[in-house]
Amino acid sequence: MNPIPPAHLLNALNWRYATKQFDPDRKIDDVSWRALEDALILTPSSYGLQPWHFFVVTSPELRSRLRPHSWNQSQITDASHLVVFTIPEKIDVPFMEKYLDRIAEVRGVPLESLAFYRDMMLKDVIAGPRSAWSREWACRQVYIALGNFMTAAALVGVDTCPLEGIDPMEYDAILDLPAKGFNTVVACAAGYRSPEDKYAALPKVRFDKSNIVQHL
Amino acid sequence: MNPIPPAHLLNALNWRYATKQFDPDRKIDDVSWRALEDALILTPSSYGLQPWHFFVVTSPELRSRLRPHSWNQSQITDASHLVVFTIPEKIDVPFMEKYLDRIAEVRGVPLESLAFYRDMMLKDVIAGPRSAWSREWACRQVYIALGNFMTAAALVGVDTCPLEGIDPMEYDAILDLPAKGFNTVVACAAGYRSPEDKYAALPKVRFDKSNIVQHL
Repeated sequence: MNPIPPAHLLNALNWRYATKQFDPDRKIDDVSWRALEDALILTPSSYGLQPWHFFVVTSPELRSRLRPHSWNQSQITDASHLVVFTIPEKIDVPFMEKYLDRIAEVRGVPLESLAFYRDMMLKDVIAGPRSAWSREWACRQVYIALGNFMTAAALVGVDTCPLEGIDPMEYDAILDLPAKGFNTVVACAAGYRSPEDKYAALPKVRFDKSNIVQHL
Repeated sequence: MNPIPPAHLLNALNWRYATKQFDPDRKIDDVSWRALEDALILTPSSYGLQPWHFFVVTSPELRSRLRPHSWNQSQITDASHLVVFTIPEKIDVPFMEKYLDRIAEVRGVPLESLAFYRDMMLKDVIAGPRSAWSREWACRQVYIALGNFMTAAALVGVDTCPLEGIDPMEYDAILDLPAKGFNTVVACAAGYRSPEDKYAALPKVRFDKSNIVQHL
């Protein structure tokens, strides 16, 4: 692995901003987009359980229908790509078993060798104390994916805009997600900033480091 | 901004794994660490509100005391750096005002010009419907920071291990956080993998892309 210089990382993160106006004529090329999908897949999650499903909405018709349920923000229709981040309706034993099967398959180990790991998950987020809020736990994991996605995009020169101001129920209905077993959490538009987006030039507002980072 | 090639991004994300065994003798150099703190600060958040505070625990004594409340995981004491991600106890009007003051300061605009923005936040997460779960909202933002941090670290060649299996109440008590107005959410160790960590060589387990990403 060939690390990038720390200054290079910070250039990308300072270049990033929540893009308000995308250039509707510029599309993300296939190689970059495939890499961003792979980045989503490679997101770390608790136990590696990956409690998520990413819908990439390309249909202009669907995107027009989503827009009124997104504070009518133009990013929904103008950005090159729109990702809807969802969680599975059920974080249950079958979901866990699917994951254990996958570990056995990828690592070529017998399922029995995963009994201890299975028990840990079972006694925690699957059927233990944390299972009472497993959907919220899954939402948090989705936000790791969101953070990873925006940083990954910035590094390859792709603009993003995270969209919390959406109506998840309407998104679910328009994208027919309950029938597929998923529920909307948050969305993120990706593409290229319009040269006219005046927000790109505004100084980034962050609290002073001394108020945010403390050494103990 | 000089983007990195998509393949370079994926190399870094494939190199990353939840490090189980850190090399206790290797410390992250100052330039890299400062960049990772800056990356944390540059994390995007809803409204830009930054509902977080990052504690970098360097004291070996504090880290020894945290370890039993972290499933006794060696990363707590062996990693070069340990970051505790926290949220403010109150996401309230004074918190919002502090942010508005900061916008006015950084952008050199009068506070009055932010009245519309103020109202939006007030009617939403500060005192509107979402204020009922503003602490959970803040936790989700913290997970954006966690995702950003792990990806940023991988890109500059620093290993990490996210730590959800910690006791937040004990962390709060040991780090005296309530007196400072913060509560623990999650932690992340950072440093360099030990050459003996056998987990580094295990194939990464991810569901097949066709089961995780869907185009609509």
